[in-house]
Amino acid sequence: MLEHLTEPIAPADAPAARMARDRQARLARPPGSLGRLEDLGTRLAGIAGTCPPPVPAHPVVVIAAADHGVHAQGVSDWPQAVTTAMVRTVAAGSASVNALARAVDADIVLLDVGTAGRAPAPHGVVQRRVRAGTRDVMTEPAMSVDECMQAIEAGVDVTRELLEAGADLLVLGDLGVGNTTVSACLVSAFTGADPARITGRGANADDQRTGRKIAAVAAALERHGPDRDPLRTLASLGGLEHAALVGVALAGAAARVPVLLDGVITNAAALAATALAPAVADHMVASHMSAEPGASAALAHLGLPALLDLDLRLGEGTGGLLAVPLVQAAARALSEVATLEDVLQR
Amino acid sequence: MLEHLTEPIAPADAPAARMARDRQARLARPPGSLGRLEDLGTRLAGIAGTCPPPVPAHPVVVIAAADHGVHAQGVSDWPQAVTTAMVRTVAAGSASVNALARAVDADIVLLDVGTAGRAPAPHGVVQRRVRAGTRDVMTEPAMSVDECMQAIEAGVDVTRELLEAGADLLVLGDLGVGNTTVSACLVSAFTGADPARITGRGANADDQRTGRKIAAVAAALERHGPDRDPLRTLASLGGLEHAALVGVALAGAAARVPVLLDGVITNAAALAATALAPAVADHMVASHMSAEPGASAALAHLGLPALLDLDLRLGEGTGGLLAVPLVQAAARALSEVATLEDVLQR
Repeated sequence: MLEHLTEPIAPADAPAARMARDRQARLARPPGSLGRLEDLGTRLAGIAGTCPPPVPAHPVVVIAAADHGVHAQGVSDWPQAVTTAMVRTVAAGSASVNALARAVDADIVLLDVGTAGRAPAPHGVVQRRVRAGTRDVMTEPAMSVDECMQAIEAGVDVTRELLEAGADLLVLGDLGVGNTTVSACLVSAFTGADPARITGRGANADDQRTGRKIAAVAAALERHGPDRDPLRTLASLGGLEHAALVGVALAGAAARVPVLLDGVITNAAALAATALAPAVADHMVASHMSAEPGASAALAHLGLPALLDLDLRLGEGTGGLLAVPLVQAAARALSEVATLEDVLQR
Repeated sequence: MLEHLTEPIAPADAPAARMARDRQARLARPPGSLGRLEDLGTRLAGIAGTCPPPVPAHPVVVIAAADHGVHAQGVSDWPQAVTTAMVRTVAAGSASVNALARAVDADIVLLDVGTAGRAPAPHGVVQRRVRAGTRDVMTEPAMSVDECMQAIEAGVDVTRELLEAGADLLVLGDLGVGNTTVSACLVSAFTGADPARITGRGANADDQRTGRKIAAVAAALERHGPDRDPLRTLASLGGLEHAALVGVALAGAAARVPVLLDGVITNAAALAATALAPAVADHMVASHMSAEPGASAALAHLGLPALLDLDLRLGEGTGGLLAVPLVQAAARALSEVATLEDVLQR
């Protein structure tokens, strides 16, 4: 069903990565002295399949927005209407993600795949609403497999358009009240981690509410898991925004464009994408280690070291955007620096 | 002697910082969800003395270059001529720092306060050579107090010109073969740490050479320290580039402009600056935790948490430049985001 999306995805290009490592060692700086920035440059060469890799000039954050039936279980302090209010705020340019996108000169694409609000989407929002929020994962599958595929396709379509228009660095972002609970379901299902260990406070839940979240995640896993089909796992336990972000990751990886993860929601989507097509992970870069406990379990499972560790737990793609300049710097540090040989001959 | 430079430096503005903290808590995101980026925004408000703080638009890295008499003790794998070769490489735009400055849209000012090469400085290098490298710290004071003051004044002069031209974020950078040894002298003198604990491998020294570095640092400290006069400590044990960077930090702090540190050389300069004028530390931001062991001792003594931890140990200002977008993002995340009240009324 998904093969047309997963088949074009190749693993990292080993010769390009090797060439990058060799080149780093000959540049006019002590070998290894740019530390993990050199590793990142090598990774970018493997993703692009060329050395030196291109310097990303058109970063875009794709923010997938949706609501969650499990909100009815009281897993969040915030009313569900906040999702739609935040969609309007992003569309108006005054959310945190807008400020950070301006800071790194990135574009924002806001993709509504399933918010519950009845108002028409504000101008500038890509409207691909599959349904008005998922079903309650505690009592039934969150999505049908068909609905899940529609959300994946929405992410793929948006991404292909962006790539055609010149996007060369993709940042995953999310918006949706209740989505740390659903992310915990996915992280637990794909990594096997205990829900109590990987379910966090999300948007400042207190002990009591966090207990309710853990109970909801445990009950959902009991009801729907384990399922050996990753698409069915994603459909049963995930959110429409997770599915859309899977689509973004698959389309980005197929085009050999780096995909920057943000916090735990995007980490959970990355687990689903990698379960569907293992080579996707080669094209991902973990921007930061979220303060949400599911993030460390997810990134460890993905084998991705995080670039930043700033106690972020907002989402929207904010942490991913903060790593954009690191990616650009890593590419430049590999492509724009003289060799030591050149320097000593000057 | 230094009072005209240290007197204008005020501590962080507490009311502006308090206003920033209050504002962060009312913005359209869960309080604290941008973690250490919010702390940074609050710090920027305290530095600027206004809330919201200005968004830095003209970052400049000041790279102070100089040579070191202690090079004669065999503390580096690299010939001293590499300092001058790297000055030429930076002037030609093809060093790592040039690549990273382009990545974050920063200007570079290269200030020669004491390289040992005989060739005339390349075009674009600010020429303020106090002497052709310091004396050997193992056998005599590296600089006279007068020479040290000349280098400090060079840093001050360059910085005041930059500030007048619109620079609003200063990054400290360094260039000079042998300067991790001298930095270890300063870190040990100002923090009291054991030389064996804070002297590192610099530009990839092996065990034997690192042992030689530790011995040189211990001998220098025995000969010149402890001295309760910080200016005399800097002159006896430091480098001309450390002194120049002290000048940059003093001038930046006096103008309430944030001063971004880089690796251990700039951390050592920050210790000297803070010993001369404690309030300077309030205007500094630690960009990253260098892999050099002296960095953690220095930053702990300064009370500055590092934003990045990427195993960098190059210098040139490279790590400081990588933190420029974080500073810009922190300011924007405080000044350009709607309040929750606004969002819910939309």
